[in-house]
Amino acid sequence: MREVAIVGIGQTPVGELWDKSLRHLGHDAVVAAMQDAGITTANALYVGNMLSGELAGQEHLATLIADFVGLRGIEAAKIEAACASGAAALRTGIMAVASGMADVVIAAGVEKMTDTLPDETTAGLALAADQEYEVAEGATFLALNAMLMQRYMHEFGVEKKHFAPFPVNAHQNAVNNPNAMFPMAISAGKYERATVVAPPINILDSSPICDGAAAVVLVPADRAAEFGAGKRVVRIVASASATDTLAVHDRRDPLYLEAAYLSSHRAYALAGFTPADIDLFELHDAFSIMSVLSLEACGFAARGQGVELGQSGAIAIDGSLPITTMGGLKARGHPVGATGIYQIVELVQQLRGEAGANQVAHAHVGMAQNIGGSGATIVTHILVGDD
Amino acid sequence: MREVAIVGIGQTPVGELWDKSLRHLGHDAVVAAMQDAGITTANALYVGNMLSGELAGQEHLATLIADFVGLRGIEAAKIEAACASGAAALRTGIMAVASGMADVVIAAGVEKMTDTLPDETTAGLALAADQEYEVAEGATFLALNAMLMQRYMHEFGVEKKHFAPFPVNAHQNAVNNPNAMFPMAISAGKYERATVVAPPINILDSSPICDGAAAVVLVPADRAAEFGAGKRVVRIVASASATDTLAVHDRRDPLYLEAAYLSSHRAYALAGFTPADIDLFELHDAFSIMSVLSLEACGFAARGQGVELGQSGAIAIDGSLPITTMGGLKARGHPVGATGIYQIVELVQQLRGEAGANQVAHAHVGMAQNIGGSGATIVTHILVGDD
Repeated sequence: MREVAIVGIGQTPVGELWDKSLRHLGHDAVVAAMQDAGITTANALYVGNMLSGELAGQEHLATLIADFVGLRGIEAAKIEAACASGAAALRTGIMAVASGMADVVIAAGVEKMTDTLPDETTAGLALAADQEYEVAEGATFLALNAMLMQRYMHEFGVEKKHFAPFPVNAHQNAVNNPNAMFPMAISAGKYERATVVAPPINILDSSPICDGAAAVVLVPADRAAEFGAGKRVVRIVASASATDTLAVHDRRDPLYLEAAYLSSHRAYALAGFTPADIDLFELHDAFSIMSVLSLEACGFAARGQGVELGQSGAIAIDGSLPITTMGGLKARGHPVGATGIYQIVELVQQLRGEAGANQVAHAHVGMAQNIGGSGATIVTHILVGDD
Repeated sequence: MREVAIVGIGQTPVGELWDKSLRHLGHDAVVAAMQDAGITTANALYVGNMLSGELAGQEHLATLIADFVGLRGIEAAKIEAACASGAAALRTGIMAVASGMADVVIAAGVEKMTDTLPDETTAGLALAADQEYEVAEGATFLALNAMLMQRYMHEFGVEKKHFAPFPVNAHQNAVNNPNAMFPMAISAGKYERATVVAPPINILDSSPICDGAAAVVLVPADRAAEFGAGKRVVRIVASASATDTLAVHDRRDPLYLEAAYLSSHRAYALAGFTPADIDLFELHDAFSIMSVLSLEACGFAARGQGVELGQSGAIAIDGSLPITTMGGLKARGHPVGATGIYQIVELVQQLRGEAGANQVAHAHVGMAQNIGGSGATIVTHILVGDD
């Protein structure tokens, strides 16, 4: 199996991008990644996307974008795994290069969520839940996560205010990210006073509906020096995906993300690492409670102790385990099918030493985790920046 | 790169399956393939599907099916490339095994198109065309294919009746397929008198809206003997995908399927074959004109000569190039995201010698081609049955 490296990255700003259609967003991110890698063609384009059919009336999206960026003829396919679509597309690209079936692959994520009414978009997002056993009962993702957060607080004696460091950290980091949707700092007090959306979740616990696209260029690691014009090479040392039940009520323990445990520990085994080897972690903070559950299942905190990592300052840029270093889903934004690729683009920025004011010192090993549904599909990647 | 073999196949009947939901269809095909392979678990499930979100209100489909068949925890993702979704899912599975990232993979295709009104399903299918430049003008797939057929007849001096052998052959072969939607023979006269839907296309030129699911089990070829209880091993000797513009009017030549040329010739090069080496060809007869264009682009007939293959009898079970040997899209049915896997299941039946009354004599090398949109994404596989 060939090792795979990332030699190009590209992203659009995240926000309400009403002057860009799906194909334009895809174009902008893919072309930026190709320019960063110094390539003019590729063998394949895999696009992570969840809702192009429902919200934009367009399936067959990968082939459309391949043509629109001038790559007519190459392989193209869309990969869908709800909000984990981006990382699933990356994983497909890794398999293509690792197998030797392709040499130069573009993995992208694209989502457009703001051309429809908020109710339509919320209904679209609910397609990631179990239609017959959750959605039919009126459960949205917000409702499901609210129940998880409520139960967590009850089970572990945690108070609402203890979650504040997660959005506070994300917003602080977004200030220095020119592509972030919400580049403004917030205080713990503002978090505590924020409008409640579904108790106990308030608006500052929740990642926004938005548009965006990101892309990376993958090549065999042993050929990486041919690309990227001398930029530091970032190798993918582990890729792992795992699943759980779609319906939260079917889980053995709703507060334990089994798929996060499985995919992170498969990744650790592939890389020969333990959690202590991870220098920074781009996790999936769609809601504050998801950050906490992810940290616990991935072995960074014991059960019920995830909030402590926030309280202790460990999650800050200068902490022992920086997370959401460019703003995360909360403040950079969460264009669902694109998020998994944004996480990878930001990790590469860190591992190249290109993260500017948010640079994590001595960033050598980075982990990214992308979550679909309320923990049903979880994809973990570990990247290493070469010296 | 590891060679990949198919050691298990499964399929549901194709039809209006109102008593089965998406997850049940997926379950039935996957479990049948697992039983055929003699496995009780797998590393990953890739599901080809186009319209689960639009027509059933369910995305995140692969993870849902993985859980429903008792495979909670394994990797799962949905692959979408319009009507080529099935073959694209197969290709993803091949990459997973070829790379060594997985040892036992299930590639499935699932589609449910009859729980909605025909107009809604037709609108859903149009999502595979260019939303902004074709669909906005009211072009359905039927309309686009009708224009292609009309232009072909004009350009090459072919009459409508010359297309009759394609649906006649498909229906004849479906008679012996217990899973076919339309297992009844039709005559050339019936074809000529059939109700016109969009001139010159009549109802017997058109594959039906229907439900169905199919699945295959993939393992490394050098481990194939461990599976399948002594059934003949079928190796995948070539897998290739190529794209063209979504919009037909953007093509250099609307009557030449460039993506079919590219993907078939990439496949020939990978396998070291020429068209003369292919014993049978499961092509994508969504409309009669597509069969003809595919045969020409893949090198089985010169430009404008594709209909001759039908007239000559070459496409029959006992001809020199049998096609649609179990009924094809026209008569077995075309549950869009599942079709690419049905083609592979049927090829395996032929290469194993399990095709019953429709067995092609001396079937050793089989080709399958799955087409998304009006020729925009085309995936070609070549399979070899071991002696």
